[in-house]
Amino acid sequence: MAVTDISIYICCQSLSSTAEYDQHMARWEPDSRGRLERAALVLYAERGFENTTVAEIAARAGLTERTFFRHFADKREVLFWGAEALQALLVSAVEDAPESASPIEAIISALEATGPLFEERRDSARQRQRVINANTELRERELIKLASLASALADALRRRGVPDPAATLTAEAGIAVFRVAFARWVSDNGSRGLPHYIQESLGELQTVTAGRSAAAPAPAVT
Amino acid sequence: MAVTDISIYICCQSLSSTAEYDQHMARWEPDSRGRLERAALVLYAERGFENTTVAEIAARAGLTERTFFRHFADKREVLFWGAEALQALLVSAVEDAPESASPIEAIISALEATGPLFEERRDSARQRQRVINANTELRERELIKLASLASALADALRRRGVPDPAATLTAEAGIAVFRVAFARWVSDNGSRGLPHYIQESLGELQTVTAGRSAAAPAPAVT
Repeated sequence: MAVTDISIYICCQSLSSTAEYDQHMARWEPDSRGRLERAALVLYAERGFENTTVAEIAARAGLTERTFFRHFADKREVLFWGAEALQALLVSAVEDAPESASPIEAIISALEATGPLFEERRDSARQRQRVINANTELRERELIKLASLASALADALRRRGVPDPAATLTAEAGIAVFRVAFARWVSDNGSRGLPHYIQESLGELQTVTAGRSAAAPAPAVT
Repeated sequence: MAVTDISIYICCQSLSSTAEYDQHMARWEPDSRGRLERAALVLYAERGFENTTVAEIAARAGLTERTFFRHFADKREVLFWGAEALQALLVSAVEDAPESASPIEAIISALEATGPLFEERRDSARQRQRVINANTELRERELIKLASLASALADALRRRGVPDPAATLTAEAGIAVFRVAFARWVSDNGSRGLPHYIQESLGELQTVTAGRSAAAPAPAVT
C-alpha cells in the first residue's frame, strides 16, 4: 500500500535521550545499542520480524539478553525508539523558526534540518524500510507514529498563533511531503540529500493542489 | 490529538453491500441493522466502547445476539463496516471522472459526491465521532482505514495515468481536506452541506501549501 510503504528511519543514535547512559555503558560494551540494532535489522531481513527472538538478536550482537533489555523494551522498539526524540527535535525547530516564516516554511525547514541526521544512515534506513513493509503490524505502527508526529507539529504551529484548520492542514501537508521525499531519498543511489527531495516533493504538492496536472505540459501560448 | 480526533462516518446503510440480504431479513426484523447500530452508539456513548457487550447491544435493540452476529462480526465492526463500500464508491467516482479533470479535481469531486449519503445522518456521525475520540484503539483503527482509503485513491489516480509522486500526494491532500471538512460539517449546527466544507478546506490547503500565511492579510499595495 502506497500510504504505509514508506518508513521513516528514526533510529538515529545521535537522537538518543539516553546518550549519557550509553557513554557510561560503552566502557565495557562499546556501542552495544548500535550492535543490537544492526544485528536486529539483519535478522529481521533474513528471517522476518515475527520469526526473530530477542535471544537471537543478543547472540548475534555478541551480547546478553539482559543487555538487550537495558536498551529496548522489546524487539519492536528497536525499530521505533527514536520517534519521540525526532518529534521533540522537529517541534522545537518549528517553534524556533523566525517569526516571519509562514506555517509551511516553518514545517519544511524543520523537516529539512533532519537531513544531516539521516544522511550517514541511508543503508540502515533502507533495511528498516524493507522490514516494515513486510509486516502489517509494523506498517500500522509506523502510520500511527507519523500521525502522532503530524499532530505534534500542528500543535507547535498553533503555539505560533496559526489558526485551525491551517495548522492541521499545514502539518498534514508537511508529513505527506516528508514521506514521499524520504522514500525517494532512501531508494536513490545518488548523492542528493534529503532536503533536495523535500523541496522537490513540496513543489509537486503545490502543483497538484493548485489543480494543474503534474503530468501535462503547460499549454503553449498562441 | 488533532490527527486522530476526526472520525469519518462510514456506517451508511445506503452503502451496504448486503442490501439485498437486509431486504430479505426485513420481512421479520424490520431495520435490524439500523436498530443494532443505533443501540450500539447509545451504549458506547453512555458506558464506553470497551464496557459494552454484544448481549447488551442486542437487548437494547430488542433483538437476539444471533441477529447481531448476522450483521456484524464484532462490536467494533458496528463502527467500521461501511468503510469498504465507501472506498469502492470513491474509487469508482475517481475512475469515472471526465478525462479533462485534473487529479485534484477528480479526487475532490469524488469526495463531494458523498455529501448526500452523509447529509441525513449528521447526528449519528457526531455520536460516532465522540465514541471514536474516546478510545485509542478506535482512533488508531480509524487512522488505518483512512490511510487505506488514501492508498486506494492513489491507485485509482495511477490507473488514470497520473504518475508518482503526484498520485500519492494528491490522494493524501484529498484525505486531509476531507477529514478537516468532515469534522467541521459534523460540528456545524447550520444548514451547510459537506461539499461546502470540502471546497473551503481545499481553498485553505491551497493557501497554506502556496506558502502564504492564512492568518496574515495580504500586504497593501502602495
